[in-house]
Amino acid sequence: MAQSRIVRTVDGVRELVAGLRGARRTVAFVPTMGNLHAGHLSLVKLAAAKCDEVLMSIFVNPTQFGPAEDYGAYPRTLDDDRAQIDAVGGVAAVFVPEVAEIYPFGLEDAVRLTLPPLARELCGANRPGHFDGVASVVCRLLNIVLPDVLVLGQKDYQQCVLIERMIADLRLPSRVVCGPTQRDPDGLALSSRNRYLTLDERERAPALHAALAAVSEALRAGATDFTALESRAIEKLQSAGFRPDYVEVRRAADLVPPCAADRPHDLVVLGAAWMGRARLIDNVRV
Amino acid sequence: MAQSRIVRTVDGVRELVAGLRGARRTVAFVPTMGNLHAGHLSLVKLAAAKCDEVLMSIFVNPTQFGPAEDYGAYPRTLDDDRAQIDAVGGVAAVFVPEVAEIYPFGLEDAVRLTLPPLARELCGANRPGHFDGVASVVCRLLNIVLPDVLVLGQKDYQQCVLIERMIADLRLPSRVVCGPTQRDPDGLALSSRNRYLTLDERERAPALHAALAAVSEALRAGATDFTALESRAIEKLQSAGFRPDYVEVRRAADLVPPCAADRPHDLVVLGAAWMGRARLIDNVRV
Repeated sequence: MAQSRIVRTVDGVRELVAGLRGARRTVAFVPTMGNLHAGHLSLVKLAAAKCDEVLMSIFVNPTQFGPAEDYGAYPRTLDDDRAQIDAVGGVAAVFVPEVAEIYPFGLEDAVRLTLPPLARELCGANRPGHFDGVASVVCRLLNIVLPDVLVLGQKDYQQCVLIERMIADLRLPSRVVCGPTQRDPDGLALSSRNRYLTLDERERAPALHAALAAVSEALRAGATDFTALESRAIEKLQSAGFRPDYVEVRRAADLVPPCAADRPHDLVVLGAAWMGRARLIDNVRV
Repeated sequence: MAQSRIVRTVDGVRELVAGLRGARRTVAFVPTMGNLHAGHLSLVKLAAAKCDEVLMSIFVNPTQFGPAEDYGAYPRTLDDDRAQIDAVGGVAAVFVPEVAEIYPFGLEDAVRLTLPPLARELCGANRPGHFDGVASVVCRLLNIVLPDVLVLGQKDYQQCVLIERMIADLRLPSRVVCGPTQRDPDGLALSSRNRYLTLDERERAPALHAALAAVSEALRAGATDFTALESRAIEKLQSAGFRPDYVEVRRAADLVPPCAADRPHDLVVLGAAWMGRARLIDNVRV
C-alpha cells in the first residue's frame, strides 16, 4: 500500500493544490489534531464521497487550548496516524505543519479572530478563547488549502455551527459538511481524550451519551420543560461520577435557546462533563 | 465608451471571477471607498499593468470609522466615480455592495479581526479600532474576489504594512502591490477628505507634505536625532494652522521605531494632522 504523502510547508500544500486545481479536481479537506480514530476515518470516507481529492491536516493548535488545559499532554501519534490513513487510502496528502508554519509571526502577535457571542456559551463558557483559537487555525488552514468542502465531525457540534458561521460571515470560499459522530457499542462517542480515562472511568463514561439521549427521548415524547430535563440529566451524570459542565437543549440550526414554536426535531441536546482528567463532550439531535 | 459593469452581490462577483479563472486570466483588485480621484485611477493603471483583469470595489466600510468620525458625511459619488472609471477603461467590473452584503450577520455579531500592536500606534493611536475595521473588510473582500494581486495606495502607508501583515499571517492567497502617492503640484497628497478643506485651509494644507519632506531631507543629510526632527515638524505644522496628531520617523519595512543601525533609506516619515474638519495624513520615504 502506498504510504501517505506528508507535506510540511504552506508552499508545499499550495503547489499540490494548484496542481489538483489545474486538473480541475475538486478538493475536500479534513483538519484534525491527529491521534486518529474511527471517527476521523469516517470523515475521510465522507470527504472522498464529496470531492475528487481528499487532503487532511494534523496539527495540535496551541491557540485553542487554555493555559491550564492539555496542550502539552495532547496525544501526538504521527506514525500510528499515518498507518491508519494508509489503511483507509484515498488521501492525496497530509499537511503536518510546525507551529511557526501556521503562526509565522508568533502566537502573541498573530492576527486574532473573535467569533460572535455563541463562542462564549456552552463549551465556550468553560473554555475562554477556545473557539476563537479554533477559528484562527481553521481560517488559516482554509486559506492555505482553499478546499471546496471542509469536513468536520458532528461530535463537536458547537464547533461545526461556529465554523459554518465564520465561513459565511468572512465569505470564505468553502462549504462545510458535518459527518455523524462515531460511537463505541456502549454509546461512548469516539474521542482522542477517551485515552485519559482509567478502565473504571471508561466503564462509567457512556452515561454521558445515555443522559443526553434520555433528554432527547423525552423531548420527542412531548416534554417541554427544558430546565427540568437538563437538571435531571445533570443529576444522572453526577450519579455516574461525572463533574458536569453543562447539559443544554438548544435549537439545532444556530444553537440559540429554544422557544415554544420550535418542534422537537429542530432541537439538539448538548453536554460536557469531566470524568477524571478527561473533559468529554457529546450531543444528540432530537 | 462602454459603461463599467456594476456588480452588487457576492454571488455576482464570484460568478464573474470564476469565469475569468476558467479562462486562466489573472486578477488584480483595487478596493476603494469611492469618491475617486487621480490617486485611485493611478492604482487602476498599476493593477492593469500587473494582471490580465482589474476588479474594483466601492464600499464605505462602517467598521473602520469611529463613533465620532465621518462615516455618515463621507462623500458618496457613484455616478461621478463610474464616469472616471469609464474614462480610464480596462476595469472588468466594480463591486458596489450594500453593508448587509459584506456583513451578513450585522455589525455587532460580525466575526472580528484584531491586528498586531502596530495597529494601535501612529494613526491607530488616534483612531481606536480603525485598522481592525479595515482588516475586517479587506479580509472579506479578498475572500470574495480571491485576487492574485491586491493594489493599495502608499498614501495609507500604515494600512499597506498592516494589510500585508494580515495577508502573510492569515495565509491569504493574494500578494500586495502598493502604488505611489499622487499629489497636487503644490505637494498636497490627493485624498477624498481634501474636499472638507475651505479655500484658505487648502492653501495651507501643503505644509504637511513640506514638513515631512524636510525631516526626510535632514535624515538623508545625516541627522539622527529623530525626536528633535519630529518636534520641529510638529511646530511647523502648528505654525501653518494644523492640529498635529503625530509626526514620526519609523523603519519603512515594518514601521518599528528606528535604531542606530538603520540607514536613511530604510526609513519613512509619517504624519497626521487636522486642518479644520479634515484629518490629513501623508508620508515620505527617505
